Amino acid sequence: MSEQTNRCYRLRRRPEGAVVRDTDLEFREEAVPDTGPGQALIRTLLLSVDPTNRPWMSDIRSYIAPVAIGSVMRGIGIGEVVASRRDDLSPGDLVFGFTGWQDYTLSDDATDEVPFAVLPSPLPAPLGAFLGVLGHTGITAYLGLEDIGRPQPGETMVVSGAAGAVGSVAGQLGKVRGARVVGVAGSAEKCRHVVEDLGFDACVDYKAADWVAQIDAATPDGVDVDFENVGGPVMDHVVSRMNVGGRVVLCGMISEYAGYHSAAGWQGQFEILQVLLQRVLMKGFIVLDHGERFPEAVGHLADLLIQGRLTYRETVVDGLENARDALNALFRGENTGKMLVKVSDPSDRTLAREGAAGVVAAT
Amino acid sequence: MSEQTNRCYRLRRRPEGAVVRDTDLEFREEAVPDTGPGQALIRTLLLSVDPTNRPWMSDIRSYIAPVAIGSVMRGIGIGEVVASRRDDLSPGDLVFGFTGWQDYTLSDDATDEVPFAVLPSPLPAPLGAFLGVLGHTGITAYLGLEDIGRPQPGETMVVSGAAGAVGSVAGQLGKVRGARVVGVAGSAEKCRHVVEDLGFDACVDYKAADWVAQIDAATPDGVDVDFENVGGPVMDHVVSRMNVGGRVVLCGMISEYAGYHSAAGWQGQFEILQVLLQRVLMKGFIVLDHGERFPEAVGHLADLLIQGRLTYRETVVDGLENARDALNALFRGENTGKMLVKVSDPSDRTLAREGAAGVVAAT
Repeated sequence: MSEQTNRCYRLRRRPEGAVVRDTDLEFREEAVPDTGPGQALIRTLLLSVDPTNRPWMSDIRSYIAPVAIGSVMRGIGIGEVVASRRDDLSPGDLVFGFTGWQDYTLSDDATDEVPFAVLPSPLPAPLGAFLGVLGHTGITAYLGLEDIGRPQPGETMVVSGAAGAVGSVAGQLGKVRGARVVGVAGSAEKCRHVVEDLGFDACVDYKAADWVAQIDAATPDGVDVDFENVGGPVMDHVVSRMNVGGRVVLCGMISEYAGYHSAAGWQGQFEILQVLLQRVLMKGFIVLDHGERFPEAVGHLADLLIQGRLTYRETVVDGLENARDALNALFRGENTGKMLVKVSDPSDRTLAREGAAGVVAAT
Repeated sequence: MSEQTNRCYRLRRRPEGAVVRDTDLEFREEAVPDTGPGQALIRTLLLSVDPTNRPWMSDIRSYIAPVAIGSVMRGIGIGEVVASRRDDLSPGDLVFGFTGWQDYTLSDDATDEVPFAVLPSPLPAPLGAFLGVLGHTGITAYLGLEDIGRPQPGETMVVSGAAGAVGSVAGQLGKVRGARVVGVAGSAEKCRHVVEDLGFDACVDYKAADWVAQIDAATPDGVDVDFENVGGPVMDHVVSRMNVGGRVVLCGMISEYAGYHSAAGWQGQFEILQVLLQRVLMKGFIVLDHGERFPEAVGHLADLLIQGRLTYRETVVDGLENARDALNALFRGENTGKMLVKVSDPSDRTLAREGAAGVVAAT
């Protein structure tokens, strides 16, 4: 990568279904912008690939405006400050925020909608953790459970997307709280990981022909909490098994994001009558609403990580040029744990300061 | 009606769709049971016909066991004690409870799952009010709003089934709380009643061809609270217009009760993605969970009624023999306000005690 060039993705057209390379999201080389007064230039090291990236490309009512046609694709990442004309950011700082899908972004203290956060130094965990278990996905799992799910000892909690970034943490936190935790994931290998490595009580492969019977067998006492990351027919069936007073943390709906408002749409009959009859609480949860509680959440998650009560995995795709493929792979369920794109390495200066805890994938 | 005969309905078969007379629900003449020790014999005066009667006939997971095949149909009503061998009930007392769809029921202080409640004497309102605005439907509206909907001044609240027993009270309570209240009902005449008599800000006839545009026009600032009694495509559209942090009181789903688990089923695409994206809270509400708060609720509702800030209507069908038709008419939306079946008149003794406030329909 040349220091002179900013590789970036610009949205050319709103995708229907999977993202079509260049037709939907064009990969371009542009000039690196100059760093003006009050600005800092940030070089992207790691890019987070999240299910929610896909609805950001669509013109639907959402919690955040859709990416404008012609704009650089929005994305969360970790970067290193490489030039600064502001007091709060210094070259060599590692920062978390909306880097976009590009090599370089300018942070402007007057216009940034969401300010970048400087990571602690020395780093208490590998860099990728700050986009996963200690980042927005881990915080989502923690706050969604604290505020809505609240599983109690002996209750049964189902987690869809159990091998994914949010589900893997949500399920482990459910175990910490004393619940029986049943995952749902998309392969036998993922299910093995969810049970053996993450410690869930059971995991159902929703691609198995008998997934309905498997869910029934794994939840003999019904379901008290559904931590929902996927939606669709599996959610339908899980909700049909909710106990009186159950809670649905409506956190994600990856099965709907690509086809929403298309002819395909949701074909299931959502079991909303059981939401009524079993007096279920269902609540939508968006982590960006809760920025003021991120320190509390990260503190709690870091404690569990240090105690070895929380583990995580990453699927790291190498090279910004592969980000579109990584997103489509995420929608095909090809990742285990947090999906990341490695964009560049930290500078020697930063590596020296942080020791070995730079861009290191988890176990 | 002979004092010797107990006319009653027994469930012969679980209906599919509308109730088929005699084939599903047989109207029979049986002997009046003897009043044993610890028992009181109650003669039904007024029977409440409620949407929830229909799912009680179906073998689905619900908040109460389905009526067993061969049993007398479950129903809520008001009766007069005509014989008693227990200390807490005296002949002439007016009582509220599960009378069943029959002339006479025995209340047994050892086995009644839900005890009968003695109405206040003298009656502060006509008898029918205790099955409506001061009964289980009014309490449903009050507690559903207090606990889940909580409309604030200036917010917009939509009420489906606005001319029905629950919706009419919910909307008026929303106005008392300072919200803009938009009803949805099934005819132009009902909509006129909802706006002119009940004081809603607007009402949309969902049978009009342009109901979607009408709802949009009536909710220019979106929807903060949906008090949902109906379900189906109208709910779908209302939920698609929810504002951030909106609340859905999932109170009833009459559009689903008759066709649930049939091939017809719910044909809409439920807008659950907007529940997520707008961080909506949706919660099922069943009034029978909250028996300990009935006095609080009735006190509040009676105050508003006496102050003239709450009004109500009844549709009274004459004769127990017409109860099945009344239920089917309720599902066709032929009622305005509370649907009641007048079964018999109070005795002269009770009428003398209570004055003119006997079986009197509301305005």
